[in-house]
Amino acid sequence: MNKNIIKKLQAIVGEKYLATAKEDLMCYSYDGTGMEFMPAAVAFPGSAAEICSIMELANQELFPVIPRGAGTGMTGGALPIEGGLVLATSRLNKILEIDTENQVAVVEPGVITGQFQAAVKREGLYYPPDPASRDFCTMGGNVAECSGGPSAVKYGVTRDYVLGLEVILPDGRLMHTGVRTAKGVVGYDFTRLFIGSEGTLGVVSKIIVRLLALPTHTRTFLVLTESLQQATLLVSDILKSGILPNTLEYMDSTALSVVNDFLPLEVPQRTRALLLIEVDGAEKSTAEQGEKLLTLLADRQRYPEILEVRQAGNDREVEDIWRARRSISPATFKLRPHKISEDVVVPRSKIHQLVDFTEKLSQELGIVILTFGHAGDGNIHVNIMVDKDNPVEDEKGQEAKRRLFDHVITLSGTLSGEHGIGITKAPFLSLELDGTSMEFMEKIKMLFDPNNILNPGKIFSTTRT
Amino acid sequence: MNKNIIKKLQAIVGEKYLATAKEDLMCYSYDGTGMEFMPAAVAFPGSAAEICSIMELANQELFPVIPRGAGTGMTGGALPIEGGLVLATSRLNKILEIDTENQVAVVEPGVITGQFQAAVKREGLYYPPDPASRDFCTMGGNVAECSGGPSAVKYGVTRDYVLGLEVILPDGRLMHTGVRTAKGVVGYDFTRLFIGSEGTLGVVSKIIVRLLALPTHTRTFLVLTESLQQATLLVSDILKSGILPNTLEYMDSTALSVVNDFLPLEVPQRTRALLLIEVDGAEKSTAEQGEKLLTLLADRQRYPEILEVRQAGNDREVEDIWRARRSISPATFKLRPHKISEDVVVPRSKIHQLVDFTEKLSQELGIVILTFGHAGDGNIHVNIMVDKDNPVEDEKGQEAKRRLFDHVITLSGTLSGEHGIGITKAPFLSLELDGTSMEFMEKIKMLFDPNNILNPGKIFSTTRT
Repeated sequence: MNKNIIKKLQAIVGEKYLATAKEDLMCYSYDGTGMEFMPAAVAFPGSAAEICSIMELANQELFPVIPRGAGTGMTGGALPIEGGLVLATSRLNKILEIDTENQVAVVEPGVITGQFQAAVKREGLYYPPDPASRDFCTMGGNVAECSGGPSAVKYGVTRDYVLGLEVILPDGRLMHTGVRTAKGVVGYDFTRLFIGSEGTLGVVSKIIVRLLALPTHTRTFLVLTESLQQATLLVSDILKSGILPNTLEYMDSTALSVVNDFLPLEVPQRTRALLLIEVDGAEKSTAEQGEKLLTLLADRQRYPEILEVRQAGNDREVEDIWRARRSISPATFKLRPHKISEDVVVPRSKIHQLVDFTEKLSQELGIVILTFGHAGDGNIHVNIMVDKDNPVEDEKGQEAKRRLFDHVITLSGTLSGEHGIGITKAPFLSLELDGTSMEFMEKIKMLFDPNNILNPGKIFSTTRT
Repeated sequence: MNKNIIKKLQAIVGEKYLATAKEDLMCYSYDGTGMEFMPAAVAFPGSAAEICSIMELANQELFPVIPRGAGTGMTGGALPIEGGLVLATSRLNKILEIDTENQVAVVEPGVITGQFQAAVKREGLYYPPDPASRDFCTMGGNVAECSGGPSAVKYGVTRDYVLGLEVILPDGRLMHTGVRTAKGVVGYDFTRLFIGSEGTLGVVSKIIVRLLALPTHTRTFLVLTESLQQATLLVSDILKSGILPNTLEYMDSTALSVVNDFLPLEVPQRTRALLLIEVDGAEKSTAEQGEKLLTLLADRQRYPEILEVRQAGNDREVEDIWRARRSISPATFKLRPHKISEDVVVPRSKIHQLVDFTEKLSQELGIVILTFGHAGDGNIHVNIMVDKDNPVEDEKGQEAKRRLFDHVITLSGTLSGEHGIGITKAPFLSLELDGTSMEFMEKIKMLFDPNNILNPGKIFSTTRT
């Protein structure tokens, strides 16, 4: 990026809001994947108008622009793999409106998801999407990746809450999509075309979301089982019974072992799976669901391999349980220095087949693989633990990933439930999508971004990483 | 359409499944709008492969193809406005799979929505979208228009239940979109790009939907109010209170008058609005919501203009109430021979402003306008009743429609909540969408259908009808 471009960028955002010093750039060179690519500069625009000017300039001078929220993404969506300008949304961090009458809010992309949830909670409202990184990740990043989280089993994902967007297109034009009402079917669904497009079609500058009334009560349960099959059966049976938990999470024994200390119960040696189940709603409804769940779990003829059922007795226990759940991902580094973190999805009746497969794979390759995640959705996080500095182990990790993806497809599953494709899954896209789909996705990218300046190399990259 | 093309079409679908006689064509010349356009032929393909061949032929010979479900659409989406071939999906009417373990089903597009709901109900499952025409309309038509219905306030619309599609593109290629799992974010969201695209981008040949466990209980309430403002306030207050009804419908006094006979209560002369409220779920949860609602409605200091609150006492009363609700649209023809039926949406706190406006408009123009519909979503059906054979009245109706749309936009609303654009709203698209959106929508249409053979003239038509 030459000095002339740098000057023009400074003129757009102000000198203060353009970083070019190496120590500053380093902070924007990595993301949740642990990979690093240095950008040439980082801009911190303070308005949609500034983003428009940046995109216009990028189109004249043909440099890549990489939109970035908090950099918590797991597939490299925010990495400047071809250098260029990182466009950080951290200054666009205002909650513009919370309309309590209509249960709608308008936010800028740099608003931290957890802070937004807290703000609407103060108004008696609820924004459900809750990625594990919610204390750091941004609403804009969530839109780009269509983030989910444990609550998705009941409440759905980011896609289900976004009503409309303000987007700046690669050519610098500003466009509005969607509505600010509960319904709307006017023209093609551009809102959802942009959601999950991983910053390859436009830069989101405003997000309109719908909100729900805040549930007033929750009950939290832990179930330990001696077999995976039993855990899978329970997941299906719970959802068939009419209980719709706001959390139906699973951990395998390896995941359990890394967060064991947090849990308010003894985990017997022979435990193969833990289910974390939470129901929420109004007082009596929550009690009713809790009782229904306990009745179901008490049927030990159908579930002979349940080892223990424990209802959290107080807020402290609930907090401990959730701390355990949210700590799994960081705690895995106790096992090995690096990880390949996948978020595949299978029909929930096939979870045990998936986990059987990963256990065999782990044994066969002699590497650590742990599984945990959103059992209610069939969205299982597979963490393949390796030391990347050991070339043999690194290659084993890559082989495990390839074989995992192949197997997921044979189980009628999908490669990603909530992390997106980015660069880490891009080489595998054709395992899942047919050639016609891929062709039209690339054509749509070309339509919006003919010079390929916006987040180039994402989704469609052909380089295996 | 020349004889050569007819012969080729007969070769594809079989002679028996190609209609060309005038009396047959007439049955496929109209839809819910009451408008009529004669097609040159109607094909009844029996497989996706036959649809592929039809589209290939249409691309060689350049004749229009108009996909058609049951023709219940309200904006002309299934009308052959440029002649050509109507592609009727009535033979593609199989429910291919109901997977109770994973709460997923796969259907062909010609399956009747109500019959599908009944089939999954027998398995203890629930498919919520419930357009008033559900006993006739098809799943394919619902996907094309992104249909809603009264249950949308709690359960959402068609978009929220479709996981994946099999689609035949205008060039005859078959493409798969989406997943058959609860989550999936692999590439751009083509599933939702096709949902609501009104048959302009592809012909849907298979639909994968998610299902819920069937709610076991419901309670149904009627509330009469003396003012519109009171009804609007109630709608907001109910949703803010944490009650999430599966129905929160509204009727104005004119709508009431046409279905009065069905209702199990006396409607006082001074009634301005009726609310139909239903809550559903498990036993205690439903009871809890019902009690909460009655407590809220009992606050006559906040709601001095409530005239009556009535809980349906038995199944017969519930049936009567629903018959009344579903009969409004056909019963309006008691008032005038034709109607302009609009399904605008406004933020729900502004419903009374919208209805105030339509009442003034009605007086000013001296025509009948009634309003009813999905108050919980702010999705109000505005029926402008006219005699189209009277040119003065017809023009007044068109003026009312234009002024309604202008006003809806000033209220931050949208032109369509569930009927789509078709031809009747196409001339008004630019009231709502910015120029950049419109440009890219047209570009996407061109990308998928460069010869403009699939449902031409829909959404983007510039002829005011």
